[in-house]
Amino acid sequence: MKIDIITIFPNFFDQFLTTSKIKHAIEDGQAEIKIYDLRDYTDLKGGKIDDTPYGGGAGMLMIYPPFHKLLKQIQTDESYTVFLSPQGTVFNQSIATKMSREIKHLILICGHYEGIDERVLSLVDEEMSIGDYVLTGGEIPAMVIADSIIRLLPGVINEASYIDDSHQQGLLKYPQYTKPSSYEGLEVPEVLRSGHHEQIRLWRLRESLRKTFTKRPDLLVKRDFSKEEKKILDNLKKEIESK
Amino acid sequence: MKIDIITIFPNFFDQFLTTSKIKHAIEDGQAEIKIYDLRDYTDLKGGKIDDTPYGGGAGMLMIYPPFHKLLKQIQTDESYTVFLSPQGTVFNQSIATKMSREIKHLILICGHYEGIDERVLSLVDEEMSIGDYVLTGGEIPAMVIADSIIRLLPGVINEASYIDDSHQQGLLKYPQYTKPSSYEGLEVPEVLRSGHHEQIRLWRLRESLRKTFTKRPDLLVKRDFSKEEKKILDNLKKEIESK
Repeated sequence: MKIDIITIFPNFFDQFLTTSKIKHAIEDGQAEIKIYDLRDYTDLKGGKIDDTPYGGGAGMLMIYPPFHKLLKQIQTDESYTVFLSPQGTVFNQSIATKMSREIKHLILICGHYEGIDERVLSLVDEEMSIGDYVLTGGEIPAMVIADSIIRLLPGVINEASYIDDSHQQGLLKYPQYTKPSSYEGLEVPEVLRSGHHEQIRLWRLRESLRKTFTKRPDLLVKRDFSKEEKKILDNLKKEIESK
Repeated sequence: MKIDIITIFPNFFDQFLTTSKIKHAIEDGQAEIKIYDLRDYTDLKGGKIDDTPYGGGAGMLMIYPPFHKLLKQIQTDESYTVFLSPQGTVFNQSIATKMSREIKHLILICGHYEGIDERVLSLVDEEMSIGDYVLTGGEIPAMVIADSIIRLLPGVINEASYIDDSHQQGLLKYPQYTKPSSYEGLEVPEVLRSGHHEQIRLWRLRESLRKTFTKRPDLLVKRDFSKEEKKILDNLKKEIESK
Protein backbone atom coordinates (compact mmCIF):
# COMPACT_ATOMS: atom_id res chain seq x y z
CA MET A 1 0.00 0.00 0.00
CA LYS A 2 1.16 3.49 -0.88
CA ILE A 3 0.45 6.17 1.72
CA ASP A 4 1.04 9.88 1.09
CA ILE A 5 0.83 12.26 4.04
CA ILE A 6 0.34 16.00 3.52
CA THR A 7 1.50 18.12 6.45
CA ILE A 8 3.12 21.40 7.50
CA PHE A 9 5.32 19.47 10.00
CA PRO A 10 7.08 16.88 7.81
CA ASN A 11 9.63 16.00 10.51
CA PHE A 12 6.84 14.99 12.87
CA PHE A 13 6.84 11.56 11.20
CA ASP A 14 10.60 10.88 11.49
CA GLN A 15 10.33 8.48 14.43
CA PHE A 16 7.05 6.97 13.29
CA LEU A 17 8.69 5.87 10.02
CA THR A 18 11.75 4.38 11.71
CA THR A 19 10.23 2.53 14.68
CA SER A 20 9.05 -1.04 15.16
CA LYS A 21 6.50 -2.61 12.81
CA ILE A 22 6.16 0.43 10.54
CA LYS A 23 9.89 0.48 9.88
CA HIS A 24 9.80 -3.23 8.99
CA ALA A 25 6.71 -2.87 6.79
CA ILE A 26 8.50 -0.13 4.82
CA GLU A 27 11.74 -2.12 4.57
CA ASP A 28 9.87 -5.23 3.47
CA GLY A 29 7.93 -3.29 0.83
CA GLN A 30 4.46 -3.85 2.29
CA ALA A 31 4.05 -0.12 2.82
CA GLU A 32 5.49 2.87 1.00
CA ILE A 33 5.07 6.15 2.87
CA LYS A 34 5.85 9.57 1.44
CA ILE A 35 5.60 12.83 3.38
CA TYR A 36 4.69 16.03 1.50
CA ASP A 37 5.42 19.46 2.97
CA LEU A 38 2.41 21.61 2.08
CA ARG A 39 4.58 24.75 2.23
CA ASP A 40 6.38 23.59 -0.93
CA TYR A 41 3.13 24.07 -2.86
CA THR A 42 2.03 27.58 -1.87
CA ASP A 43 2.45 30.59 -4.16
CA LEU A 44 2.52 32.99 -1.20
CA LYS A 45 5.78 34.44 0.09
CA GLY A 46 7.75 32.70 2.83
CA GLY A 47 5.82 29.45 2.52
CA LYS A 48 2.70 31.07 3.99
CA ILE A 49 -0.24 28.65 3.98
CA ASP A 50 -2.77 30.32 6.31
CA ASP A 51 -5.01 33.39 6.40
CA THR A 52 -7.86 34.93 8.43
CA PRO A 53 -11.40 33.52 8.15
CA TYR A 54 -14.09 35.29 6.13
CA GLY A 55 -16.87 36.49 8.43
CA GLY A 56 -14.48 36.93 11.37
CA GLY A 57 -13.54 34.59 14.19
CA ALA A 58 -10.55 33.42 16.21
CA GLY A 59 -7.36 32.16 14.62
CA MET A 60 -6.18 31.34 11.16
CA LEU A 61 -7.33 28.87 8.49
CA MET A 62 -5.28 26.84 6.04
CA ILE A 63 -5.78 28.19 2.53
CA TYR A 64 -7.14 26.19 -0.40
CA PRO A 65 -4.69 26.76 -3.30
CA PRO A 66 -1.66 24.70 -2.09
CA PHE A 67 -3.90 21.67 -1.42
CA HIS A 68 -5.39 22.07 -4.91
CA LYS A 69 -1.94 22.29 -6.50
CA LEU A 70 -0.47 19.30 -4.64
CA LEU A 71 -3.50 16.99 -4.87
CA LYS A 72 -3.81 17.57 -8.63
CA GLN A 73 -0.24 16.28 -8.91
CA ILE A 74 -0.53 13.15 -6.77
CA GLN A 75 -4.15 11.99 -7.05
CA THR A 76 -4.81 9.15 -9.54
CA ASP A 77 -7.78 6.84 -10.22
CA GLU A 78 -6.47 4.56 -7.47
CA SER A 79 -6.21 7.25 -4.79
CA TYR A 80 -8.45 7.54 -1.77
CA THR A 81 -8.05 10.95 -0.12
CA VAL A 82 -8.88 11.42 3.54
CA PHE A 83 -8.92 14.68 5.47
CA LEU A 84 -8.30 14.10 9.20
CA SER A 85 -10.86 16.13 11.10
CA PRO A 86 -12.86 15.90 14.33
CA GLN A 87 -15.91 16.24 12.07
CA GLY A 88 -15.38 13.08 10.06
CA THR A 89 -16.64 9.52 10.10
CA VAL A 90 -15.31 7.93 13.27
CA PHE A 91 -12.55 5.47 12.37
CA ASN A 92 -12.75 1.94 13.80
CA GLN A 93 -11.25 -1.52 13.37
CA SER A 94 -13.69 -2.65 10.68
CA ILE A 95 -12.91 0.48 8.61
CA ALA A 96 -9.18 -0.24 9.15
CA THR A 97 -9.65 -3.83 7.92
CA LYS A 98 -11.65 -2.73 4.86
CA MET A 99 -9.11 -0.02 3.97
CA SER A 100 -6.15 -2.39 4.38
CA ARG A 101 -7.78 -4.74 1.84
CA GLU A 102 -9.25 -2.34 -0.69
CA ILE A 103 -7.13 0.79 -0.92
CA LYS A 104 -3.95 0.87 -2.98
CA HIS A 105 -3.08 4.55 -2.59
CA LEU A 106 -4.14 6.42 0.52
CA ILE A 107 -3.64 10.19 0.83
CA LEU A 108 -3.90 11.58 4.35
CA ILE A 109 -4.27 15.34 4.83
CA CYS A 110 -3.30 16.84 8.19
CA GLY A 111 -5.12 20.03 9.14
CA HIS A 112 -3.84 22.68 11.53
CA TYR A 113 -4.59 26.10 13.05
CA GLU A 114 -8.33 26.72 13.50
CA GLY A 115 -9.16 24.59 10.51
CA ILE A 116 -9.10 24.47 6.78
CA ASP A 117 -10.83 26.32 3.96
CA GLU A 118 -14.01 24.31 3.31
CA ARG A 119 -13.19 24.11 -0.40
CA VAL A 120 -10.41 21.61 0.35
CA LEU A 121 -13.21 19.11 1.04
CA SER A 122 -14.18 19.24 -2.63
CA LEU A 123 -10.91 17.40 -3.37
CA VAL A 124 -11.36 14.78 -0.67
CA ASP A 125 -13.15 11.40 -0.66
CA GLU A 126 -13.85 11.31 3.05
CA GLU A 127 -13.42 13.26 6.27
CA MET A 128 -12.28 10.95 9.01
CA SER A 129 -12.02 11.38 12.77
CA ILE A 130 -10.11 9.14 15.16
CA GLY A 131 -12.45 10.04 18.04
CA ASP A 132 -14.63 12.70 19.63
CA TYR A 133 -11.84 14.99 20.80
CA VAL A 134 -9.84 17.87 19.34
CA LEU A 135 -6.08 17.84 18.76
CA THR A 136 -3.66 20.60 17.76
CA GLY A 137 -3.25 19.07 14.30
CA GLY A 138 -3.90 16.13 12.01
CA GLU A 139 -0.42 14.59 12.32
CA ILE A 140 -1.19 12.27 15.25
CA PRO A 141 -4.49 11.14 13.66
CA ALA A 142 -2.63 10.42 10.40
CA MET A 143 -0.26 8.17 12.38
CA VAL A 144 -3.24 6.41 13.98
CA ILE A 145 -4.81 5.63 10.60
CA ALA A 146 -1.53 4.64 8.94
CA ASP A 147 -0.41 2.50 11.89
CA SER A 148 -3.67 0.59 12.28
CA ILE A 149 -3.96 -0.10 8.54
CA ILE A 150 -0.31 -1.05 7.96
CA ARG A 151 -0.51 -3.45 10.91
CA LEU A 152 -3.25 -5.35 9.03
CA LEU A 153 -1.45 -5.62 5.69
CA PRO A 154 -0.52 -9.21 4.80
CA GLY A 155 2.78 -10.25 6.37
CA VAL A 156 3.26 -7.29 8.73
CA ILE A 157 2.24 -9.18 11.85
CA ASN A 158 1.18 -12.79 12.35
CA GLU A 159 -2.44 -13.35 11.43
CA ALA A 160 -2.73 -15.33 14.69
CA SER A 161 -1.92 -12.11 16.51
CA TYR A 162 -4.65 -9.91 15.18
CA ILE A 163 -7.41 -12.55 14.90
CA ASP A 164 -7.37 -12.41 18.69
CA ASP A 165 -7.12 -8.60 19.01
CA SER A 166 -9.56 -6.59 21.03
CA HIS A 167 -12.35 -5.40 18.70
CA GLN A 168 -11.38 -7.79 15.89
CA GLN A 169 -14.02 -10.29 17.11
CA GLY A 170 -16.24 -7.58 18.58
CA LEU A 171 -15.03 -8.44 22.11
CA LEU A 172 -12.34 -7.13 24.42
CA LYS A 173 -9.36 -9.43 24.88
CA TYR A 174 -9.08 -11.77 27.87
CA PRO A 175 -6.53 -11.03 30.64
CA GLN A 176 -3.01 -12.22 29.83
CA TYR A 177 -0.12 -13.16 32.12
CA THR A 178 3.57 -13.90 31.71
CA LYS A 179 6.49 -14.77 33.98
CA PRO A 180 7.13 -14.52 36.88
CA SER A 181 4.16 -16.60 38.10
CA SER A 182 4.27 -14.81 41.44
CA TYR A 183 5.51 -11.29 42.17
CA GLU A 184 4.97 -9.08 45.23
CA GLY A 185 1.90 -11.08 46.22
CA LEU A 186 0.22 -11.19 42.82
CA GLU A 187 -0.22 -14.62 41.21
CA VAL A 188 -0.98 -15.89 37.71
CA PRO A 189 -4.38 -17.71 37.67
CA GLU A 190 -3.91 -21.47 38.21
CA VAL A 191 -5.84 -22.54 35.11
CA LEU A 192 -3.34 -20.81 32.77
CA ARG A 193 -0.53 -22.87 34.27
CA SER A 194 -2.49 -26.14 34.06
CA GLY A 195 -1.63 -27.01 30.47
CA HIS A 196 -5.30 -28.05 29.99
CA HIS A 197 -6.08 -26.52 26.60
CA GLU A 198 -9.88 -26.79 26.69
CA GLN A 199 -10.11 -25.28 30.18
CA ILE A 200 -7.78 -22.46 29.10
CA ARG A 201 -9.90 -21.80 26.00
CA LEU A 202 -13.09 -21.67 28.09
CA TRP A 203 -11.50 -19.44 30.75
CA ARG A 204 -10.30 -17.02 28.08
CA LEU A 205 -13.66 -16.89 26.34
CA ARG A 206 -15.45 -16.31 29.67
CA GLU A 207 -13.02 -13.58 30.76
CA SER A 208 -13.22 -11.93 27.35
CA LEU A 209 -17.02 -11.83 27.62
CA ARG A 210 -16.78 -10.65 31.23
CA LYS A 211 -14.45 -7.76 30.35
CA THR A 212 -16.65 -6.70 27.46
CA PHE A 213 -19.84 -6.97 29.55
CA THR A 214 -18.29 -4.98 32.42
CA LYS A 215 -16.36 -2.33 30.51
CA ARG A 216 -17.99 -1.95 27.09
CA PRO A 217 -21.54 -3.40 27.17
CA ASP A 218 -22.26 -1.24 24.08
CA LEU A 219 -20.07 -3.60 22.03
CA LEU A 220 -22.27 -6.58 22.95
CA VAL A 221 -25.42 -4.93 21.60
CA LYS A 222 -24.05 -4.93 18.03
CA ARG A 223 -22.75 -8.51 18.10
CA ASP A 224 -24.13 -11.98 17.26
CA PHE A 225 -23.24 -14.76 19.69
CA SER A 226 -22.54 -18.47 19.31
CA LYS A 227 -24.57 -20.86 21.51
CA GLU A 228 -21.54 -21.37 23.74
CA GLU A 229 -20.99 -17.63 24.14
CA LYS A 230 -24.65 -17.04 24.91
CA LYS A 231 -24.63 -19.67 27.67
CA ILE A 232 -21.47 -18.25 29.26
CA LEU A 233 -22.84 -14.72 29.05
CA ASP A 234 -26.11 -15.72 30.73
CA ASN A 235 -24.18 -17.33 33.59
CA LEU A 236 -21.92 -14.28 33.90
CA LYS A 237 -24.90 -11.95 34.13
CA LYS A 238 -26.41 -14.06 36.94
CA GLU A 239 -23.06 -14.15 38.74
CA ILE A 240 -22.59 -10.37 38.48
CA GLU A 241 -26.19 -9.55 39.46
CA SER A 242 -26.03 -11.82 42.53
CA LYS A 243 -23.06 -9.85 43.90
CA MET B 1 0.48 19.84 34.56
CA LYS B 2 3.15 17.19 34.90
CA ILE B 3 2.95 14.30 32.44
CA ASP B 4 5.16 11.20 32.67
CA ILE B 5 5.17 8.79 29.75
CA ILE B 6 6.41 5.20 30.16
CA THR B 7 7.52 3.58 26.91
CA ILE B 8 10.00 1.21 25.30
CA PHE B 9 10.49 3.70 22.44
CA PRO B 10 11.54 6.92 24.23
CA ASN B 11 12.70 8.61 20.99
CA PHE B 12 9.23 8.25 19.52
CA PHE B 13 8.27 11.46 21.33
CA ASP B 14 11.20 13.61 20.09
CA GLN B 15 9.22 15.51 17.47
CA PHE B 16 6.03 15.63 19.51
CA LEU B 17 7.87 17.48 22.29
CA THR B 18 9.49 19.99 19.95
CA THR B 19 6.63 20.88 17.58
CA SER B 20 4.02 23.63 17.63
CA LYS B 21 1.76 24.15 20.66
CA ILE B 22 3.30 21.37 22.76
CA LYS B 23 6.75 22.88 22.43
CA HIS B 24 5.39 26.28 23.52
CA ALA B 25 3.41 24.82 26.42
CA ILE B 26 6.60 23.16 27.69
CA GLU B 27 8.69 26.31 27.20
CA ASP B 28 6.07 28.45 28.94
CA GLY B 29 5.86 26.04 31.88
CA GLN B 30 2.21 25.05 31.42
CA ALA B 31 3.23 21.45 30.80
CA GLU B 32 6.19 19.41 32.00
CA ILE B 33 6.69 16.15 30.12
CA LYS B 34 9.13 13.42 31.09
CA ILE B 35 9.74 10.26 29.10
CA TYR B 36 10.75 7.07 30.97
CA ASP B 37 12.41 4.17 29.18
CA LEU B 38 10.88 1.02 30.69
CA ARG B 39 14.02 -0.95 29.80
CA ASP B 40 15.95 1.01 32.44
CA TYR B 41 13.81 -0.67 35.12
CA THR B 42 14.02 -4.35 34.24
CA ASP B 43 16.22 -6.80 36.16
CA LEU B 44 16.48 -9.12 33.15
CA LYS B 45 19.58 -9.18 30.97
CA GLY B 46 19.89 -6.93 27.92
CA GLY B 47 16.95 -4.74 28.94
CA LYS B 48 14.50 -7.58 28.22
CA ILE B 49 10.94 -6.60 29.15
CA ASP B 50 8.80 -9.27 27.46
CA ASP B 51 8.06 -12.97 27.79
CA THR B 52 5.68 -15.66 26.48
CA PRO B 53 2.07 -15.82 27.74
CA TYR B 54 0.96 -18.44 30.29
CA GLY B 55 -1.57 -20.75 28.73
CA GLY B 56 -0.06 -20.35 25.25
CA GLY B 57 -0.94 -18.00 22.42
CA ALA B 58 0.66 -15.82 19.78
CA GLY B 59 3.34 -13.28 20.55
CA MET B 60 4.97 -11.85 23.63
CA LEU B 61 3.65 -9.94 26.64
CA MET B 62 5.26 -7.11 28.59
CA ILE B 63 6.29 -8.35 32.02
CA TYR B 64 5.04 -6.93 35.31
CA PRO B 65 8.18 -6.28 37.45
CA PRO B 66 9.67 -3.23 35.59
CA PHE B 67 6.30 -1.43 35.71
CA HIS B 68 6.07 -2.19 39.43
CA LYS B 69 9.58 -0.89 40.07
CA LEU B 70 9.17 2.33 38.06
CA LEU B 71 5.64 3.20 39.20
CA LYS B 72 6.57 2.75 42.87
CA GLN B 73 9.25 5.41 42.29
CA ILE B 74 7.16 8.02 40.48
CA GLN B 75 3.59 7.61 41.77
CA THR B 76 2.48 10.06 44.49
CA ASP B 77 -0.89 10.99 46.04
CA GLU B 78 -1.38 13.44 43.19
CA SER B 79 -0.73 10.96 40.39
CA TYR B 80 -3.36 9.61 38.05
CA THR B 81 -2.05 6.58 36.17
CA VAL B 82 -3.54 5.60 32.82
CA PHE B 83 -2.74 2.50 30.77
CA LEU B 84 -3.41 3.08 27.07
CA SER B 85 -5.31 0.09 25.78
CA PRO B 86 -8.01 -0.70 23.20
CA GLN B 87 -9.94 -2.13 26.16
CA GLY B 88 -10.25 1.08 28.14
CA THR B 89 -12.83 3.81 28.63
CA VAL B 90 -13.14 5.62 25.31
CA PHE B 91 -11.48 9.03 25.60
CA ASN B 92 -13.48 12.09 24.48
CA GLN B 93 -13.46 15.88 24.70
CA SER B 94 -15.35 16.06 27.98
CA ILE B 95 -12.85 13.65 29.60
CA ALA B 96 -10.04 15.79 28.16
CA THR B 97 -11.58 18.94 29.66
CA LYS B 98 -12.08 17.29 33.06
CA MET B 99 -8.52 15.91 33.11
CA SER B 100 -7.03 19.26 32.09
CA ARG B 101 -8.74 20.89 35.08
CA GLU B 102 -8.38 18.24 37.77
CA ILE B 103 -5.19 16.25 37.26
CA LYS B 104 -1.84 17.59 38.42
CA HIS B 105 0.32 14.58 37.61
CA LEU B 106 -0.65 12.26 34.78
CA ILE B 107 1.25 9.03 34.14
CA LEU B 108 0.66 7.45 30.73
CA ILE B 109 1.76 3.84 30.15
CA CYS B 110 2.34 2.69 26.57
CA GLY B 111 1.82 -1.02 25.96
CA HIS B 112 3.39 -3.05 23.16
CA TYR B 113 3.73 -6.53 21.69
CA GLU B 114 0.59 -8.65 22.19
CA GLY B 115 -0.22 -6.87 25.42
CA ILE B 116 0.75 -6.55 29.01
CA ASP B 117 0.74 -8.80 32.07
CA GLU B 118 -2.70 -8.22 33.63
CA ARG B 119 -1.10 -7.50 37.01
CA VAL B 120 0.11 -4.14 35.72
CA LEU B 121 -3.53 -3.04 35.91
CA SER B 122 -3.38 -3.35 39.70
CA LEU B 123 -1.07 -0.29 39.67
CA VAL B 124 -3.23 1.77 37.33
CA ASP B 125 -6.18 4.11 37.97
CA GLU B 126 -7.80 3.69 34.59
CA GLU B 127 -7.47 1.92 31.26
CA MET B 128 -8.14 4.35 28.46
CA SER B 129 -8.72 3.84 24.75
CA ILE B 130 -8.58 6.54 22.08
CA GLY B 131 -11.00 4.61 19.84
CA ASP B 132 -12.24 1.20 18.74
CA TYR B 133 -9.18 0.18 16.76
CA VAL B 134 -5.87 -1.55 17.47
CA LEU B 135 -2.44 0.04 17.06
CA THR B 136 1.06 -1.43 17.25
CA GLY B 137 1.69 0.34 20.56
CA GLY B 138 0.53 2.88 23.10
CA GLU B 139 2.86 5.68 21.98
CA ILE B 140 0.48 7.31 19.48
CA PRO B 141 -2.46 7.09 21.94
CA ALA B 142 -0.28 8.70 24.64
CA MET B 143 0.37 11.60 22.25
CA VAL B 144 -3.37 11.89 21.57
CA ILE B 145 -4.19 12.14 25.29
CA ALA B 146 -1.29 14.48 26.09
CA ASP B 147 -1.95 16.73 23.08
CA SER B 148 -5.69 17.13 23.65
CA ILE B 149 -5.25 17.83 27.38
CA ILE B 150 -2.28 20.22 27.03
CA ARG B 151 -4.22 22.16 24.40
CA LEU B 152 -6.90 22.87 27.01
CA LEU B 153 -4.56 24.04 29.79
CA PRO B 154 -5.00 27.75 30.61
CA GLY B 155 -2.94 29.96 28.30
CA VAL B 156 -1.93 27.32 25.73
CA ILE B 157 -4.41 28.45 23.09
CA ASN B 158 -6.97 31.27 23.09
CA GLU B 159 -10.12 30.35 24.94
CA ALA B 160 -12.04 31.88 22.00
CA SER B 161 -10.46 29.17 19.85
CA TYR B 162 -11.62 26.13 21.74
CA ILE B 163 -15.04 27.42 22.84
CA ASP B 164 -15.92 27.10 19.15
CA ASP B 165 -14.23 23.72 18.59
CA SER B 166 -16.06 20.77 17.16
CA HIS B 167 -17.40 18.68 20.08
CA GLN B 168 -16.81 21.42 22.67
CA GLN B 169 -20.46 22.57 22.32
CA GLY B 170 -21.66 19.10 21.33
CA LEU B 171 -21.88 20.17 17.68
CA LEU B 172 -19.60 19.93 14.67
CA LYS B 173 -18.05 23.22 13.57
CA TYR B 174 -19.54 25.30 10.74
CA PRO B 175 -17.72 25.48 7.36
CA GLN B 176 -14.91 28.04 7.28
CA TYR B 177 -13.37 29.95 4.37
CA THR B 178 -10.34 32.15 3.85
CA LYS B 179 -8.72 34.00 0.95
CA PRO B 180 -8.81 33.89 -2.03
CA SER B 181 -12.58 34.50 -2.33
CA SER B 182 -12.62 32.71 -5.67
CA TYR B 183 -10.29 29.97 -6.89
CA GLU B 184 -10.67 27.58 -9.83
CA GLY B 185 -14.42 28.08 -9.88
CA LEU B 186 -15.07 27.69 -6.14
CA GLU B 187 -16.42 30.72 -4.29
CA VAL B 188 -16.69 31.77 -0.65
CA PRO B 189 -20.41 32.05 0.38
CA GLU B 190 -21.66 35.62 -0.05
CA VAL B 191 -22.97 36.00 3.51
CA LEU B 192 -19.48 35.57 5.01
CA ARG B 193 -18.25 38.52 2.93
CA SER B 194 -21.26 40.71 3.82
CA GLY B 195 -19.93 42.09 7.10
CA HIS B 196 -23.43 41.52 8.59
CA HIS B 197 -22.58 40.02 11.98
CA GLU B 198 -26.04 38.72 12.91
CA GLN B 199 -26.53 37.05 9.51
CA ILE B 200 -23.07 35.49 9.80
CA ARG B 201 -23.84 34.20 13.31
CA LEU B 202 -27.13 32.68 12.13
CA TRP B 203 -25.53 31.13 9.03
CA ARG B 204 -22.79 29.56 11.14
CA LEU B 205 -25.22 28.19 13.70
CA ARG B 206 -27.43 26.73 10.93
CA GLU B 207 -24.47 25.16 9.08
CA SER B 208 -23.09 23.79 12.35
CA LEU B 209 -26.44 22.14 13.08
CA ARG B 210 -26.70 20.95 9.46
CA LYS B 211 -23.25 19.31 9.55
CA THR B 212 -23.98 17.62 12.84
CA PHE B 213 -27.43 16.43 11.68
CA THR B 214 -26.03 15.10 8.40
CA LYS B 215 -22.76 13.57 9.58
CA ARG B 216 -23.14 12.78 13.28
CA PRO B 217 -26.86 12.65 14.23
CA ASP B 218 -25.80 10.57 17.27
CA LEU B 219 -24.31 13.73 18.80
CA LEU B 220 -27.68 15.50 18.67
CA VAL B 221 -29.42 12.80 20.69
CA LYS B 222 -27.31 13.57 23.76
CA ARG B 223 -27.64 17.36 23.58
CA ASP B 224 -30.02 20.02 24.95
CA PHE B 225 -31.02 22.77 22.52
CA SER B 226 -31.81 26.46 22.90
CA LYS B 227 -35.13 27.68 21.43
CA GLU B 228 -33.27 29.26 18.53
CA GLU B 229 -31.35 26.04 17.80
CA LYS B 230 -34.53 23.98 17.97
CA LYS B 231 -36.29 26.22 15.45
CA ILE B 232 -33.36 26.12 13.03
CA LEU B 233 -33.07 22.35 13.39
CA ASP B 234 -36.80 21.84 12.67
CA ASN B 235 -36.50 23.94 9.51
CA LEU B 236 -33.37 22.06 8.46
CA LYS B 237 -35.09 18.70 8.88
CA LYS B 238 -37.99 19.86 6.69
CA GLU B 239 -35.56 21.18 4.09
CA ILE B 240 -33.56 17.95 4.01
CA GLU B 241 -36.63 15.71 3.95
CA SER B 242 -38.21 17.66 1.07
CA LYS B 243 -35.18 17.02 -1.13
